[in-house]
Amino acid sequence: MEESRPKEIRAKKSENFDEWYTQVILKSELMDYSPVSGCMVFRPLAYAIWEIIQKAADEMFKAAGIQNVYFPLLIPERLLKKEQEHVKGFAPEVAWVTEAGNSKLDERLAIRPTSETIMYDSFSKWIRSWRDLPLKFNQWNSVIRWEFRHPTPFLRSREFLWNEGHTVYATREEAEAERDVILGIYSRITEEYLALPGIVGKKTDKEKFAGAIATYSIEHLLPDGKAIQGPDFHLDGQNFSKAFEITFLNKDGKRDYAWQNTWAITTREIGVMVATHSDDRGLVLPPMVAPIQVVIIPIVDERSKDKVLAVAKEVRSKIAKVARVHLDDRDYYTAGWKFNEWEMKGVPLRMEIGPRDIKASQVTLARRDTMERFTAGMLGLEQTVVDVLESIQNNLFETAKKFLKENIRNAKSLQELKEMISKKGGIVQVGWCGMQSCEDKIKEETGAKITNLPLEAERFERCIVCGMQARETANVARSY
Amino acid sequence: MEESRPKEIRAKKSENFDEWYTQVILKSELMDYSPVSGCMVFRPLAYAIWEIIQKAADEMFKAAGIQNVYFPLLIPERLLKKEQEHVKGFAPEVAWVTEAGNSKLDERLAIRPTSETIMYDSFSKWIRSWRDLPLKFNQWNSVIRWEFRHPTPFLRSREFLWNEGHTVYATREEAEAERDVILGIYSRITEEYLALPGIVGKKTDKEKFAGAIATYSIEHLLPDGKAIQGPDFHLDGQNFSKAFEITFLNKDGKRDYAWQNTWAITTREIGVMVATHSDDRGLVLPPMVAPIQVVIIPIVDERSKDKVLAVAKEVRSKIAKVARVHLDDRDYYTAGWKFNEWEMKGVPLRMEIGPRDIKASQVTLARRDTMERFTAGMLGLEQTVVDVLESIQNNLFETAKKFLKENIRNAKSLQELKEMISKKGGIVQVGWCGMQSCEDKIKEETGAKITNLPLEAERFERCIVCGMQARETANVARSY
Repeated sequence: MEESRPKEIRAKKSENFDEWYTQVILKSELMDYSPVSGCMVFRPLAYAIWEIIQKAADEMFKAAGIQNVYFPLLIPERLLKKEQEHVKGFAPEVAWVTEAGNSKLDERLAIRPTSETIMYDSFSKWIRSWRDLPLKFNQWNSVIRWEFRHPTPFLRSREFLWNEGHTVYATREEAEAERDVILGIYSRITEEYLALPGIVGKKTDKEKFAGAIATYSIEHLLPDGKAIQGPDFHLDGQNFSKAFEITFLNKDGKRDYAWQNTWAITTREIGVMVATHSDDRGLVLPPMVAPIQVVIIPIVDERSKDKVLAVAKEVRSKIAKVARVHLDDRDYYTAGWKFNEWEMKGVPLRMEIGPRDIKASQVTLARRDTMERFTAGMLGLEQTVVDVLESIQNNLFETAKKFLKENIRNAKSLQELKEMISKKGGIVQVGWCGMQSCEDKIKEETGAKITNLPLEAERFERCIVCGMQARETANVARSY
Repeated sequence: MEESRPKEIRAKKSENFDEWYTQVILKSELMDYSPVSGCMVFRPLAYAIWEIIQKAADEMFKAAGIQNVYFPLLIPERLLKKEQEHVKGFAPEVAWVTEAGNSKLDERLAIRPTSETIMYDSFSKWIRSWRDLPLKFNQWNSVIRWEFRHPTPFLRSREFLWNEGHTVYATREEAEAERDVILGIYSRITEEYLALPGIVGKKTDKEKFAGAIATYSIEHLLPDGKAIQGPDFHLDGQNFSKAFEITFLNKDGKRDYAWQNTWAITTREIGVMVATHSDDRGLVLPPMVAPIQVVIIPIVDERSKDKVLAVAKEVRSKIAKVARVHLDDRDYYTAGWKFNEWEMKGVPLRMEIGPRDIKASQVTLARRDTMERFTAGMLGLEQTVVDVLESIQNNLFETAKKFLKENIRNAKSLQELKEMISKKGGIVQVGWCGMQSCEDKIKEETGAKITNLPLEAERFERCIVCGMQARETANVARSY
């Protein structure tokens, strides 16, 4: 029977990162391009990963008292324009609906680039008194931002999937206290699930969300030495509540403007995860987000076939109690072909079962992260699987943390910063006076920008540009 | 402390159904109108119900080997036009994106009214051989159909949420066998979860999905005597595979066109459920889809407060093991105000705990469906709650089934059909020869249409219009 040729990645991660990334996401069948430029298809593997991320985050949101809702996809232009900074930030990349059926619409409708303006119109109707607060809403949906820069699947897509949290509080203190709750949830998702370290920090005013008073983000570092923004949290203060008249009667019977926050994690994280952990054989998935954690491959010849398959099915039932397991019993592919396919698709642990394994009452295991191959006894196999999966998860996280740590450097002069950025990439920490003119100068001189102001970092005495007193430690990096 | 006035429905279901329905969905805070005409907001209660439906259906889909995916929201006009019947059916209600940022697009992009055309473009790339089949995909998303008829929230909305299943098979037989699997899943959702009976049948050629060779549907009957279409299943045959060149190499090494199906359940079901079970006090939710199944209301005075709250919390922990329970311990609302609110929001079972209950080692229960109020011992309370919830679920379903049964009638002449439709509404079963001219005549004479051709029904000898031999039993009803 004819067998299709096994796929392989024809580019090296260490030599040609961009080409390698493209081949990994295509050949592992995570995604495909679509006929709409910049919009991608999430194939079953990518969508299943997203469902795992979504479920984990959603449970944490619900435990924090956040309720899910769904607001319309389309936003009338007049609403989008209500908050000055917001519309300035988003209008250049809005996709506009202008016709329906054979009719021209009276007013253009924006496909949501984010839902502040459509949600807050309703909030202003619903919120009347302190009893209606806090109001903590979230929605899972897709948004469209018609960027004209070069799109990269997952990392920069014209349509992406995300959660958008929108919360309303009576006081500034309560609103600010939410920051650690949400960034805590996002850190758990990125670290415990995706095995991705990040640097938590505040964005500069120049880089903050359009309409916010402050933005906090988790920044990742990709293997090519460029930084990329992960999940974020915005303190909106009273900017939107004033634009949308979201007021409430406080306990003293006086009318107050509410305090608002917004926050998001997107499918970009899948791209960061792929780029970080995968290798020249294909995808490497952290067990916590792998839709299949263990794949069982029976090693059969004509004589042993029935026996091996029977044992494989038994083992599958046992392992199913502790892990997401799949038995690949297709008889029209060879074992070697299957090894290759599941390696390409990043399954963390392969379990081979053949006549010799059965005789020795063992299985043969192969770790996707280290490619180590070893036997394990049938007795206590569930625990072995649990332990190996945990070890893989930890190994991926530790390796990524080590890479991040090794690529954070300090610079004491603009010249040194420039050289580090151009020769080594990575993140360079510098002192900054807080002036936008110095921020602009860094960009001008190095091509890199301030990604964020890390909450935990060494302090510097002087601004690297003007030499005035440093008020902040800034992380500088070339960035996606 | 000032207390907002309790809400009440100021219309009777039996007298003014439309106004009653509008008040129920608004005052129970299921939904709200949005600034975009015909598009609604799903508030937390409606969205939580949708999440329960979605989770139940999604688990059944996955057990049937169906995988979730996500395809782009936007479809290039040239793709939408590939299948003749399909574009004819959908183009009149497509919302078109024509501009992005400040640029005019070269080609109009449709917001998906359904995703056949964008998905099948990819399918034609991915499917090569019989090994790639069956391909069974599903996506949960929202679609936009810019209808110009009067919109009704949930029941007919310009944007709605749904699942769209898209499957591809090697043979006609396999494709047709899927019908009972999917309609079986949808029947379980409508009957076991939503407590909604329905009539399973085939659509006439006139009423079938644009592009399908046959459509099957579950039709519901609303309390106002009008029918409304529920979930559906379409045999697409090879119509799309020919338009999109979805071919595969079969086991004999020959190239074949694939056989396809599509199927969907939408948020319309929430509207049908509300309309069917609710009453003049507000929403009535079947326990299987109620986000809160049991609400505990402490009956407190100053002296008993601490004791009662402590007992209420204990009871909550016990009940949480068997039901979705909420303790309403807000101290700024009276018990009476809370009774009213939770009745409006349709919580199936209310549990009152006061000093007298505690002394008697009991709680007081109140069923939302029958409004019966009775006491139950603390001992074995979990089982009592399980039993009462089951009894409520059954009662709602039986009541709805009785209503449906009483409103299915037979007519032997066009005159009789006309009178039944105009005087009694409901569903009238008639013999039909299968000709579209007779179908059109029924519509012309009665204002009602053939909703579907029930799979299980009495047979008639003659067509009610032309008197020729009846080939089908047709259900005729005024319809949403």
